[in-house]
Amino acid sequence: MHFPLIPSTANPTLASQLDDAINNKTKPLGSLGTLERLARQLGLIQETAAVSIDRPAMLVFAGDHGVVAEGISAYPQDVTWQMVENFLAGGAAINVFARQNGCALSIVDAGVKHDFGQRAGLVDRKIAPGTRNFALEPAMSAQQCATALEHGAALVADLPGNVVAFGEMGIGNTTAAAALMHKLAGIPAAECVGAGTGLAPDGILRKQQVIEAAAARHAGVDDPLAVLATFGGFEIAMMTGAMLEAARRRKVLLIDGFIVTSAVLVAARMAPAILDYCVFAHCSDEAGHRRMLDALGAAPLLQLGLRLGEGTGAALALPLLHAAANFLEQMATFASASVSGKSA
Amino acid sequence: MHFPLIPSTANPTLASQLDDAINNKTKPLGSLGTLERLARQLGLIQETAAVSIDRPAMLVFAGDHGVVAEGISAYPQDVTWQMVENFLAGGAAINVFARQNGCALSIVDAGVKHDFGQRAGLVDRKIAPGTRNFALEPAMSAQQCATALEHGAALVADLPGNVVAFGEMGIGNTTAAAALMHKLAGIPAAECVGAGTGLAPDGILRKQQVIEAAAARHAGVDDPLAVLATFGGFEIAMMTGAMLEAARRRKVLLIDGFIVTSAVLVAARMAPAILDYCVFAHCSDEAGHRRMLDALGAAPLLQLGLRLGEGTGAALALPLLHAAANFLEQMATFASASVSGKSA
Repeated sequence: MHFPLIPSTANPTLASQLDDAINNKTKPLGSLGTLERLARQLGLIQETAAVSIDRPAMLVFAGDHGVVAEGISAYPQDVTWQMVENFLAGGAAINVFARQNGCALSIVDAGVKHDFGQRAGLVDRKIAPGTRNFALEPAMSAQQCATALEHGAALVADLPGNVVAFGEMGIGNTTAAAALMHKLAGIPAAECVGAGTGLAPDGILRKQQVIEAAAARHAGVDDPLAVLATFGGFEIAMMTGAMLEAARRRKVLLIDGFIVTSAVLVAARMAPAILDYCVFAHCSDEAGHRRMLDALGAAPLLQLGLRLGEGTGAALALPLLHAAANFLEQMATFASASVSGKSA
Repeated sequence: MHFPLIPSTANPTLASQLDDAINNKTKPLGSLGTLERLARQLGLIQETAAVSIDRPAMLVFAGDHGVVAEGISAYPQDVTWQMVENFLAGGAAINVFARQNGCALSIVDAGVKHDFGQRAGLVDRKIAPGTRNFALEPAMSAQQCATALEHGAALVADLPGNVVAFGEMGIGNTTAAAALMHKLAGIPAAECVGAGTGLAPDGILRKQQVIEAAAARHAGVDDPLAVLATFGGFEIAMMTGAMLEAARRRKVLLIDGFIVTSAVLVAARMAPAILDYCVFAHCSDEAGHRRMLDALGAAPLLQLGLRLGEGTGAALALPLLHAAANFLEQMATFASASVSGKSA
């Protein structure tokens, strides 16, 4: 796969136009805080001062992980496919929040260890029934990784709107994400691991040791793509490909929690300007997330103590994206509303 | 006015039912963080495990402040009525966010120094054209204060839904709110004052000195109602009455920023259990807000660096209230979705 060259959104002329538009709205200067930063970012991504949020769509990528054999998850592996069934039936948290906030939802089987058959509503892009155990061998082959990236890109090419939100499901994937973080951000494994779906402290320590041993085993692996193939998951790789394509198409990328952010980390090592297109929805309670966000220079919108994944934080942040676009589009200016400016 | 006796929402049997309902949803235990706390609070307020958000309505109270004569605001007093006109025309930030998030909006003239005449969409409850200057004399008489509280209560009695959000407009009202905070929470004036609509540091110092001098002048005033009359504003007093009535009717109170929180502070000194009914929408960037929230033991939902007032933070938090109710109402349980529980 050729990685798209993603241009920075930097544009001083437009930035200045956006600042003027924001500052002339009937409100004290800077008083909409984070929403002003967000409106500016939307304008730069969309290359216009007339920003819009058009048909936001969420892709939820699901995959299984061979590394669960090391006993690093509080839930059995079957929960991955069971939760995919729950998504298809509309009963999971992501269904509730996507419905509430008007976000189209696609569930993608990137590599779940289960035969779903032909199922309405499930996008079948299964690379294999789960990755291999990266404690013993690379999680996937270079070819599998490339195929996952390509599938992700192709899925985004089919989306109609200008915002893509990302979610995931995969028992064991906080371990994969923590390993990617350790390798790509150079952060000690102890600061990358967390409770995931609910590990006790001894389980978290085990997770750390599995990552440290695997990093030692695959010590020569440093190239971002090779790191992704060695430690990642099919859902993470497919998401990475989708993100690169979404940024290339100048869409807004709405980023969920720990696992989705690990895919951003991979993508940013390939194409650093992708960060210009990312809106980080929230800081989760998964231990390493704050550190990973810091490593990316990311300022998340919400801090709600979430640690559910699925894309839930991204779906919950969507109204703030609308608010940023709406205030810029709909608010009166001091002049149009005949409101006095600041006293001398 | 007789203050309603507001009962605590404490109910161990219902709390336990709510915990069971929340914990059986298809998600790791506690993984919806703040939304789980919010769902529990909604259930306790509404006395049911079948929570709902019904026709949320925002009351925006506007009033002018005699203390502006002391030069404590960055904007001229006329901006109060000009912004009321902006609200009526639909061009202010609160119009945009209330529209977006499906919140009915009522604009109440509690005491603006301007003759609006009979105006469609403006609720005229004007006590007087602005308060007196509390640097020299009490802001309002005891009778004016009582009338404001009664009007506020009556307005809530007319609202159909089960959520009342609060907003305000009034040049000079961060000074009144800071004075209330200083008197009722016993916090040094220097830690109560902030930039308001955009004061420079010398202006903030002036604001502090005005409050300190006024507190010395009215040194004997300690009863919460007398403090409200002496230092408050008509919009703050009317809001306080509205809050007491809303809690008495077991509605959810959605609290905006610094000024609205100062009304909660007054109400909580009269009826401490009112805090059980309050959802604190956000922590604003106005310097004293974090400290005031701490004094109330309040955990705000959003931290977006807002400092606009009007009710904007409350309107932006409304989707999170819906999310809390919706996950409790709509998510599948482990049993209903046949999803495996945690491994042994």
